[in-house]
Amino acid sequence: MTEQKPRDPDGFHQHLHDIQDLLARQQLVESLEHRQNMPHRALVETITHKQNLARLSRKLERLHPADIARILEALPLADRWFVWDLVRADKDGEILLEVSDAVRATLLRTMDPDELKAVAESLDADELADLAPDLPSEIVQDVFDSLDQKEQERVRAAMSYPEGTVGALMDFDMVTVREDVTLEVVLRYLRRFEALPDHTDKLFVIDRDDRLHGVLTLESLLINAPETQVGQVMKSRSLVTFGPDDDANVAATAFERYDLVSVPVIDDDRRLIARVTIADMVDQIREESEAEIFSHAGLREEEDIFASVIQSVKNRWAWLAINLVTAFLASRVIDLFQDSIEKLVALAALMPIVAGIGGNAGNQAITMIVRALAMGQVEPSGMWRLLRKEAGVALINGLVWGGVVGALAWWLYRDPSLGLVMTAAMTLNLLLAATAGVLIPLIRQRLGRDPALGSSVLITALTDSGGFFIFLGLATLFLL
Amino acid sequence: MTEQKPRDPDGFHQHLHDIQDLLARQQLVESLEHRQNMPHRALVETITHKQNLARLSRKLERLHPADIARILEALPLADRWFVWDLVRADKDGEILLEVSDAVRATLLRTMDPDELKAVAESLDADELADLAPDLPSEIVQDVFDSLDQKEQERVRAAMSYPEGTVGALMDFDMVTVREDVTLEVVLRYLRRFEALPDHTDKLFVIDRDDRLHGVLTLESLLINAPETQVGQVMKSRSLVTFGPDDDANVAATAFERYDLVSVPVIDDDRRLIARVTIADMVDQIREESEAEIFSHAGLREEEDIFASVIQSVKNRWAWLAINLVTAFLASRVIDLFQDSIEKLVALAALMPIVAGIGGNAGNQAITMIVRALAMGQVEPSGMWRLLRKEAGVALINGLVWGGVVGALAWWLYRDPSLGLVMTAAMTLNLLLAATAGVLIPLIRQRLGRDPALGSSVLITALTDSGGFFIFLGLATLFLL
Repeated sequence: MTEQKPRDPDGFHQHLHDIQDLLARQQLVESLEHRQNMPHRALVETITHKQNLARLSRKLERLHPADIARILEALPLADRWFVWDLVRADKDGEILLEVSDAVRATLLRTMDPDELKAVAESLDADELADLAPDLPSEIVQDVFDSLDQKEQERVRAAMSYPEGTVGALMDFDMVTVREDVTLEVVLRYLRRFEALPDHTDKLFVIDRDDRLHGVLTLESLLINAPETQVGQVMKSRSLVTFGPDDDANVAATAFERYDLVSVPVIDDDRRLIARVTIADMVDQIREESEAEIFSHAGLREEEDIFASVIQSVKNRWAWLAINLVTAFLASRVIDLFQDSIEKLVALAALMPIVAGIGGNAGNQAITMIVRALAMGQVEPSGMWRLLRKEAGVALINGLVWGGVVGALAWWLYRDPSLGLVMTAAMTLNLLLAATAGVLIPLIRQRLGRDPALGSSVLITALTDSGGFFIFLGLATLFLL
Repeated sequence: MTEQKPRDPDGFHQHLHDIQDLLARQQLVESLEHRQNMPHRALVETITHKQNLARLSRKLERLHPADIARILEALPLADRWFVWDLVRADKDGEILLEVSDAVRATLLRTMDPDELKAVAESLDADELADLAPDLPSEIVQDVFDSLDQKEQERVRAAMSYPEGTVGALMDFDMVTVREDVTLEVVLRYLRRFEALPDHTDKLFVIDRDDRLHGVLTLESLLINAPETQVGQVMKSRSLVTFGPDDDANVAATAFERYDLVSVPVIDDDRRLIARVTIADMVDQIREESEAEIFSHAGLREEEDIFASVIQSVKNRWAWLAINLVTAFLASRVIDLFQDSIEKLVALAALMPIVAGIGGNAGNQAITMIVRALAMGQVEPSGMWRLLRKEAGVALINGLVWGGVVGALAWWLYRDPSLGLVMTAAMTLNLLLAATAGVLIPLIRQRLGRDPALGSSVLITALTDSGGFFIFLGLATLFLL
């Protein structure tokens, strides 16, 4: 395959360029008029300006809220606010739900209480629950008070489940039917709807007490004869359902495995509360993996690329501080061997190699095991088998790569015993990395902690300090 | 929130435990019988053994192929093969499509040509195309020859698009209708189906030449009056469609943004070729993010947790080799300053701190910028703005954290100028990290390369060698 110019199949880059172009012209017009010393109000009234604005508005009106959200994320603050002002008020809510948390904060900052209230009023119960933490509490309370009792209950329900549970992702909009009616009746019932809820691939069959008896897929509704009863063709056995307290990631993997589009959420008495859809699950999967990537890189959360320097510093300082502490500890280990380094200064040049390879191998092992734990592929009882295997990998890598580096050290410093110490230290540090790579996540899992959190920092700290200690210790014992 | 025992909402862990339990009993029976010196054939015939096997088979028969796939992934090789033998032959294909590449190889190894052929014959065109690279080519050819011409074309089409394109994920199973019929006719037509293709949320409206005129969502079909014509209620404007050459990741983000379930794939003449569904997109999103996590950790690909030591070594050696080279280069930089370290051995203890913090800050910057590039939020023209911002972040971090570490160095080694050099070196290395963190991905993007690939290795190599050089260089100039 040859390298190609990246294609733009969904036209996003074209939209972005058009808008950036219109914004640039806008700025040019303003700066020209400014130079002619026109007062600012008159300037806004000029014809070119107005034409430009009209074209920008028309362009924005035609875009999907999700695309406007992406464009806002890609614009620097001044342009972002300018475009945000132009976006038609009725899309505000959808756009706010689509942008990243960091960008949402920059948009909300520009809105006055009346606008915020108008946005909050336009949202469904589950959407209001999503946005509520970012809105002023008086406004949320006002809007909440204006809802009917059923909606209030839904908002309360959605807000009562913590992030990361199925409850926090519930959607209350769904179609329910009774099992003793015919498909003909269901078809007539559906024709009374103006629209079906998004991602309706099945109707929920409930009784008078809201208890879930089964699901009627649109497929069954469509392929079966109209005189069939719902109860005859509904699916009621081995039905996938969730409780609102279930882990959202576990739910997401169930969607993945069984190729689901929507799943009912029921309480302990099998009463239907709401449903979750694949759209929320896709967001969940994306957010989960991004959180993992960000935390690997030591970013607290997704960062607005146009955030101020101070906000970026805040997002990044915690990880830097932790790493400074571990680097400082490693530095103290080296300090213990000052005398040895003074006598054989080659040690200073070689020691980072031992520490570095240990960190890399440790990260390989721990990443694999954290993932296997998350997938339920490893039980703590499988520890010995994993330890044996990782130790085997470490031994081979230590002898091969340690041997190569040892030979290089021998050749560079004309000292065969220095080479041997190098090989031995690398092998031992790789064994340390393998052991820690298996034990850290398994022990944390057994203690009920998240095995992934900070695993990379921990293992790197251990293999750095450990690598310096092993190498300098062996050198002190055998070379000096 | 208090820590809880992880829940098992989908019952997977329970299934896995049941099967492990049955397997353990099986082994116990075998070992007991073995001690009584029964010949192996007689042993297989014993009653307990048979009962156990029957229970295991029943258990497996009730499970979804995706769950059997996960269970196979969680079993060591001997158990895995034992269970694989028990699984009913008609599920083989689906299970093989669900397991990871590494585990698939271990399963295929145990199958004879006839079994492989039976599996291949049970697959749809797109599934056969997926599995073909892992099957012996004679078998693929045999099965291919036995297909009718339309199916052969489909297999050829699906196999002709490289991984990572929409074409490689196409599904040929779909329902098409004409625009001049009424919904009543469509409803009658659908009742002739035994089942609809998975994820049918819309029917495709085509003309005699297979050209796509629009889509009829099941929603429109259900909410509109039966006498309405398809052409009146089909959606034909701003339709999301893909070409088979489109990037699968771009397609996946379109599914995410517009909350889609299925999308038609058309050729340059708007002729309908196939469709892609959210199920394939979810797999795509998951694989993409896992590939990112694996490559961060330096694993070539997903690893079978029960892989042999040799296979694991193969999966991991490339990254270790690259890192050895960069560590070796850093070691040569240190070697340049042997004399300085001999005179002031504190330098050896302090230098890893300078290198380490540079690597961390560089990884933070590069991760953010690679992601912003992938999301289309940064154009190469935005380089200066980003450089200014990252330099600002680096300056603040350098003065704050560099100041802290400088003060510590002063206190530990009673040497104020050593502290000053430390602060200066940390600030300069952070500035280097910031500059490289912005420039490396932007330049690679401009050269048409993947900005993410190996970005972490590159920046760490630079900040390690750079950090040693800056710190030891400044120390040599000002302290000695």
